[in-house]
Amino acid sequence: MAQDSETKQKTKKERLRERLLDAAEATIARDGLAALKARDLAAKVGCALGAIYTAFDDLDELILCVGARTMTRLEATLADGAKSNGADELQRLALAYLRYARSEEPRWRALFEHRLPPGKPVPDWYASQRDRLFSRLEEPLARLTPKTAPAELRLQARTLFSAVHGIVMLGLEEKLAADAAKTLEKELTYFVATMAKGLPRA
Amino acid sequence: MAQDSETKQKTKKERLRERLLDAAEATIARDGLAALKARDLAAKVGCALGAIYTAFDDLDELILCVGARTMTRLEATLADGAKSNGADELQRLALAYLRYARSEEPRWRALFEHRLPPGKPVPDWYASQRDRLFSRLEEPLARLTPKTAPAELRLQARTLFSAVHGIVMLGLEEKLAADAAKTLEKELTYFVATMAKGLPRA
Repeated sequence: MAQDSETKQKTKKERLRERLLDAAEATIARDGLAALKARDLAAKVGCALGAIYTAFDDLDELILCVGARTMTRLEATLADGAKSNGADELQRLALAYLRYARSEEPRWRALFEHRLPPGKPVPDWYASQRDRLFSRLEEPLARLTPKTAPAELRLQARTLFSAVHGIVMLGLEEKLAADAAKTLEKELTYFVATMAKGLPRA
Repeated sequence: MAQDSETKQKTKKERLRERLLDAAEATIARDGLAALKARDLAAKVGCALGAIYTAFDDLDELILCVGARTMTRLEATLADGAKSNGADELQRLALAYLRYARSEEPRWRALFEHRLPPGKPVPDWYASQRDRLFSRLEEPLARLTPKTAPAELRLQARTLFSAVHGIVMLGLEEKLAADAAKTLEKELTYFVATMAKGLPRA
């Protein structure tokens, strides 16, 4: 009986987690991270404010779980049609990244706006999902520069991703020029081609 | 007499603008954009809340004026020691940009966090200061690819800046890896060298 009631307890907690996660995801997807407030969330789900903190350690954990769902969606859009040529594949990934950012801008932006308190690392489950996404870049990079060591390749993939992200982010915001969003495909195409050409082939 | 009182009025307004700007700059430089509140600012300067809006059109104008001061500071750190070789100069500028971001992170970050309401363009005086900063990149790019048309060069400078900015921003946040801030110099050096090598020389 004790076992039964424990299971029931767990299931109830899991159901609450799921409902909170769905509600938080809907808010972030529509209005972005700044719109997420614990009080609104509790009202939406119909639980007490304190109940959020029985289901999640804190709001950060909840936001990271929404982020994981965003990464899953991003991963799905990157998946199809891999090119056999390394440079073409990098090109394809960069343009797919831009398309994803455009199509789900608030939740994409939330991935980068959210910051944990200083000194608190992201949990392992989150880091490994993120690193799996990067491995999509490492693979075509490795084809372009087959002699690069794996650790070096990881660093290069991170650098390349950060660069593409910077171009997409500032371009969509039109921070640097009033017409930037219009020229983004062209910029990314030029950028990836230049990078691919400059990589050491040795 | 009417003239005199008008001048006096103007000077008073200008003094208030200056004091508000100094106070806002101090807040943003220490605690970032999120810490800037009109009420606190009025209290700091010792004016009524409404007086802020006699000195500035709105908080956006005030924040853009702080941004202009930040750009002036950034420009000053980029100024010395220009290299004669185009690739070396791009390298130098990228590393100087990283150094500036590290040394004045809250106010540097504020430049990019601040967004005007949709559809409202940045004022011309702001855009021209920003574009002057970009011309620092256009010059070494032009030396590397002398046949590139000026409009194309402007676009390439913007792309290159956005890429470097993405690497610096995500690296300082350690968003992508726990040790990213340590490898940033190496990443930027590798990145700019690869780009410079890949640029069309024709």
